[in-house]
Amino acid sequence: MPRVTVYSTQNCPYCRMVKAFLDKYDVDYMAIDVGTDREQAKKMVEISGQYGVPVIVVDDEVIVGFDAQRLNELFGSAKPGDIYDVLIVGAGPGGLTAGVYCSRKMLKTVIISENIGGQALESWAIENYMGYRMVSGEDLMHRFEEQVREEHISLELDRVASIRKEGEIFLAETATGATYSAKTVILTQGKRPRKLGVEGEERYLGRGLSTCSTCDGPLFRDKVVAVVGGGNSALQTAIEMSKIAKTVYLIVRSTIKADEAYITRYREQKNIITYENHTISSLQGNAMLNGITIKDRDSGKETVIALDGVFAEVGWIPNTDFLEGFLMLNEMKEIVIDINCNTSFPGVFAAGDVTNIRTKQIITAAGEGAKAALEAYAYLTK
Amino acid sequence: MPRVTVYSTQNCPYCRMVKAFLDKYDVDYMAIDVGTDREQAKKMVEISGQYGVPVIVVDDEVIVGFDAQRLNELFGSAKPGDIYDVLIVGAGPGGLTAGVYCSRKMLKTVIISENIGGQALESWAIENYMGYRMVSGEDLMHRFEEQVREEHISLELDRVASIRKEGEIFLAETATGATYSAKTVILTQGKRPRKLGVEGEERYLGRGLSTCSTCDGPLFRDKVVAVVGGGNSALQTAIEMSKIAKTVYLIVRSTIKADEAYITRYREQKNIITYENHTISSLQGNAMLNGITIKDRDSGKETVIALDGVFAEVGWIPNTDFLEGFLMLNEMKEIVIDINCNTSFPGVFAAGDVTNIRTKQIITAAGEGAKAALEAYAYLTK
Repeated sequence: MPRVTVYSTQNCPYCRMVKAFLDKYDVDYMAIDVGTDREQAKKMVEISGQYGVPVIVVDDEVIVGFDAQRLNELFGSAKPGDIYDVLIVGAGPGGLTAGVYCSRKMLKTVIISENIGGQALESWAIENYMGYRMVSGEDLMHRFEEQVREEHISLELDRVASIRKEGEIFLAETATGATYSAKTVILTQGKRPRKLGVEGEERYLGRGLSTCSTCDGPLFRDKVVAVVGGGNSALQTAIEMSKIAKTVYLIVRSTIKADEAYITRYREQKNIITYENHTISSLQGNAMLNGITIKDRDSGKETVIALDGVFAEVGWIPNTDFLEGFLMLNEMKEIVIDINCNTSFPGVFAAGDVTNIRTKQIITAAGEGAKAALEAYAYLTK
Repeated sequence: MPRVTVYSTQNCPYCRMVKAFLDKYDVDYMAIDVGTDREQAKKMVEISGQYGVPVIVVDDEVIVGFDAQRLNELFGSAKPGDIYDVLIVGAGPGGLTAGVYCSRKMLKTVIISENIGGQALESWAIENYMGYRMVSGEDLMHRFEEQVREEHISLELDRVASIRKEGEIFLAETATGATYSAKTVILTQGKRPRKLGVEGEERYLGRGLSTCSTCDGPLFRDKVVAVVGGGNSALQTAIEMSKIAKTVYLIVRSTIKADEAYITRYREQKNIITYENHTISSLQGNAMLNGITIKDRDSGKETVIALDGVFAEVGWIPNTDFLEGFLMLNEMKEIVIDINCNTSFPGVFAAGDVTNIRTKQIITAAGEGAKAALEAYAYLTK
């Protein structure tokens, strides 16, 4: 067996998924919490050149992030497929709810997803999921996952790369080369973070630039950070980071557009410095990001800010690249559905943030997941 | 102050609402639990001629059930309305979720409903509300209600009898004669139990015939009862009543059509006697129901069953009578909505079981409530 070390922080959902993956395949590993152990945190940065978790070291190989494909190659075992009744793509609120509903209808179900919890994992605190006054995205998704684990559902950590139909059967090929067969498909693979659109962005990702503040936030204790964006998630990240970091710059392209509840709390924080009507014009640094230049969109005046980290909260793009030409997408590349979650392709259903429903909320994604499952059931039994 | 006595059982949501109503208007009352006190249970039946809770005695007047109109006449105070941003009709999962979302958007919101919790109150056990492995409808709706109570929302126990628009303002008149004004309306008033369609039905309601087994079930300990229906709620009621009553007859019009999970547990109960392909042809009794005659739909053969109670679980009818001609309903009298919960009337939104969405589930109603609220917000701010 190879020697495996996992560098992680406590609140990082991707860290937990790495561990869940290794546990599933009975891989022994040493777990190091770099949120509390500053010496080991330094060591992790040295080894990986990364200021972000998780980092997995397998013998001499350093794997950055929850790289499902590489982990599958090293430890996984692709299984030749049975024919499932339902193949669910994605395991966020929509996919997990669909899974529970399918299983309760005794449908043979597989969920394929790169992570468990989807975008919901990255919420610091959810105050409007009915049934809970306050819960972290991580905790809530953990409860969803537990409900799925109680059912007879296969849960595969992998990424669906293509879908096609042959005869009566849908075939889904994954990034790791596995093929799954199913009579119906439920698409719930959500969205991914939008890029800042600044040169050097790729280079600094994990080297000071982060798209998961719940994961990487604790690494920036008493440091100076910027949050980019002006919506609910940007404000929530700014509020949370203001408790961890020394100073938080909030860089907003136009004006803040968020719920009053967030705006009130944002105003109470004394260490948030806000630049509205500004964009990032460049990133500075060597091995690590150490500064940004921002630009006033009216005057063109530039300001240089020295800092240690940048959290991008500038929106999301639907994960539908592999569906182009297969079914109907709207101009925002979201899957077009009807009120009962049918897509334009019979036997294919969709739920959650990946669809053209305007409301992007956990409770709505879950409600749509239930719809999609019951529609798939009706489709299979008619 | 009048002398008020409330006869109730522990799990009965309508009993709790009576108490909440009286508490709201600072009315002193004596509460008697007839689920545990058999002597008082007898007395309640004598006074009211009723085998169902709640029963409220106000001086010499006996009020049967949570009669919001009569209670409002006796104790309430209709308020001349401010103009609300949003008027929500109904306080089930959809209405309560919409309320929380509206309030978080700082919209001035009123919820008008005859009860708090809607049909969800009447579920014995909910196993598929994500976030909870198992919860009673009563408990879950109590948590929803608590979230609403934390927000600045007016919650009025009343029934909307009509809606019209004058200029830019919607006017809703209630059963108690109050008028509320609002800029937008969210309709979430759900459905009501379908009748059995047997002669004498009205006469026996509360006298052996019940449409709320979670309320009245405990009154039938060690007795013989029938459950009418063949869907999930009929099976769930039969399973629960089999633990309370001596014998449970399950009368199914055609065949059982329920989730496998319920069917499995139903099969494990030894004291359920099932008649498929049978309907009730008559009800027998004097002051109280004491028997039913059922009829084989093929042979026409009739069977007489002596029993103490009948629980009707034969489906639901949308509460849309007052909306005929105001907006578009489908052939089942459900409100027609688009994927974002817009109705055919601009500024009027709808969510939950009252709409033409096929899936009638708590999580779906809640998800749609969030949609309706955010659409109302968008409508108001554009």
